[in-house]
Amino acid sequence: MQKEIGMIGLGKMGGNMARQLVEKGWNVHGMDADPATTQKLGKEGIQGAYSIHELVSKLKAPRVVWLMVPAGKPEDDLLFGNDRHHDRHRKSNTLTDLRYRSRSSVKDAGLVRLLSRGDVIIDGGNSYYKDSISRAKKVATFGIKFIDVGFSGGPAGARNGGCLMIGGDESSFKRLEPLFKDLARDNGYQFFKGVGAGHFVKMVHNGIEYGMMQALGEGFAMLKKTPFKLDLTRVADIYNNGSVIESRLVGWMKKAFQEHGEDLKQVSGSVGHTGEGEWTAKTAREMKIPAKIIGESYKFRVQSKKKPSFTGKVVSALRGQFGGHNIKE
Amino acid sequence: MQKEIGMIGLGKMGGNMARQLVEKGWNVHGMDADPATTQKLGKEGIQGAYSIHELVSKLKAPRVVWLMVPAGKPEDDLLFGNDRHHDRHRKSNTLTDLRYRSRSSVKDAGLVRLLSRGDVIIDGGNSYYKDSISRAKKVATFGIKFIDVGFSGGPAGARNGGCLMIGGDESSFKRLEPLFKDLARDNGYQFFKGVGAGHFVKMVHNGIEYGMMQALGEGFAMLKKTPFKLDLTRVADIYNNGSVIESRLVGWMKKAFQEHGEDLKQVSGSVGHTGEGEWTAKTAREMKIPAKIIGESYKFRVQSKKKPSFTGKVVSALRGQFGGHNIKE
Repeated sequence: MQKEIGMIGLGKMGGNMARQLVEKGWNVHGMDADPATTQKLGKEGIQGAYSIHELVSKLKAPRVVWLMVPAGKPEDDLLFGNDRHHDRHRKSNTLTDLRYRSRSSVKDAGLVRLLSRGDVIIDGGNSYYKDSISRAKKVATFGIKFIDVGFSGGPAGARNGGCLMIGGDESSFKRLEPLFKDLARDNGYQFFKGVGAGHFVKMVHNGIEYGMMQALGEGFAMLKKTPFKLDLTRVADIYNNGSVIESRLVGWMKKAFQEHGEDLKQVSGSVGHTGEGEWTAKTAREMKIPAKIIGESYKFRVQSKKKPSFTGKVVSALRGQFGGHNIKE
Repeated sequence: MQKEIGMIGLGKMGGNMARQLVEKGWNVHGMDADPATTQKLGKEGIQGAYSIHELVSKLKAPRVVWLMVPAGKPEDDLLFGNDRHHDRHRKSNTLTDLRYRSRSSVKDAGLVRLLSRGDVIIDGGNSYYKDSISRAKKVATFGIKFIDVGFSGGPAGARNGGCLMIGGDESSFKRLEPLFKDLARDNGYQFFKGVGAGHFVKMVHNGIEYGMMQALGEGFAMLKKTPFKLDLTRVADIYNNGSVIESRLVGWMKKAFQEHGEDLKQVSGSVGHTGEGEWTAKTAREMKIPAKIIGESYKFRVQSKKKPSFTGKVVSALRGQFGGHNIKE
């Protein structure tokens, strides 16, 4: 394949992916809802576009467009246009959505109407896998392929190589493999047959992640409160040196204590959440698979909003380490 | 310190520790409740003793005796003798206990009465930390020090270097540090001040381990049942290449699928448990720290006895990988 790609969404994930691809010799055309972001990244070799029309016109067919935008409505607006419900003036739900509407030229036509048969859209965001399946179907009516990629590894992984769980049709995957390879760390990509499979595997990953983090939150809350005066940094350190729970998460735990102190004073005791844990719990119910750990971990986050705790601080601190999330109190 | 130690309990953990110490130039006197085991290990350089009396007589003071015996009554019998409740003929609870009573010379006197002032007893088993505190107190009345060591890493860690969480008094720790170093992998030991602290840190470790394994169990049950036909070995593989949940457990997950097949057909859907998860959940309640994840993970294991599931198979398979537990159906 030609090493050329259009990247829509240049935030902490998309921006870093674009940087990595430029570094690896790709011709990257980038566009963000915020023109200032697009402009800034221009200094790092990413060729800016200020509307999806402009972006598409700069790419040679067959085009590859990678979406790294907030899941849900903003993505649908981008793909299918704002007027898809004949409701051009309805209220926007999110600021991002508003920006995409007002500053880009999406207004009437969506991305799918600008692309041509044989082009590929890759959704690299944290989309609900059922949305990916229905988007792929709609996109297919335009002769366009849809590939869903679950990406794990946070902004650092986006910059230096992450973990890609790829769903879709096998021939598109094979054609795009050099792209995935360049975004992944060694052995860091895997194809799963069927549209939605990538986002499904990623969703379950995040559900497991919720549970693992919650277990660490509970455990470290106990270690914190015990009459033994334990040095929590040393506990995290020994847990990560040959024990059964040795993991990246425990490594981040140590770093978090080193950065924020053992009280995690400035870290919020309420934990943010962005959908995946909720989807995993919901999907487990639909599949009739008991999943108390994932379900309770999600519930904890919701309830932590009104009921902050040290357990919550631990989970927030971990999110801060790998996700670049805002975790300040 | 002199590189000499007495090891009581030569099972899959104690036996491997003894082997490792012999390899590292230690003079190891070993005794198991089963004389055949003691004899077998004699061929690997461990000097066999067939009673605690014999074991103690072979060690030069100040002696170091490492206990690697089942937690609870067997350990108390060994330490304080069988007649400590003036109930010499009471029914034994466990087979191991019976063996210790009938085949060793513990009968009347316990280990503490055979040792001398200045000797050290190390409990390297999975003991409840409150038991360790009360044992240390009793042992102290004989002028003997008590060190509690939580060991993680399973039989492989015992053989090649594991993770030691050490509690007790600092001067004993310092004196024994060469021993701990030889049993640990690089940076694999840590001292926590206070008797019981080692077992407390290990107990919480196991609680976290329960939660992490349960999260994996739930997640892989979903991955197994989904209409996407996912190759679970490949899923485990990609989860362990740059994702947020990268961990030893996920590595073992992959190995388990490779060994047992993706259906984990021969693996039990009921999960064994040996105390630590229950203690962690109980301790959290005592400390008034909500710990749903740890508590539910423990409850799942109890209920899995009557309600086997694929989730249970996953957790059992993981236990089999690191713990050398019997996990066959």
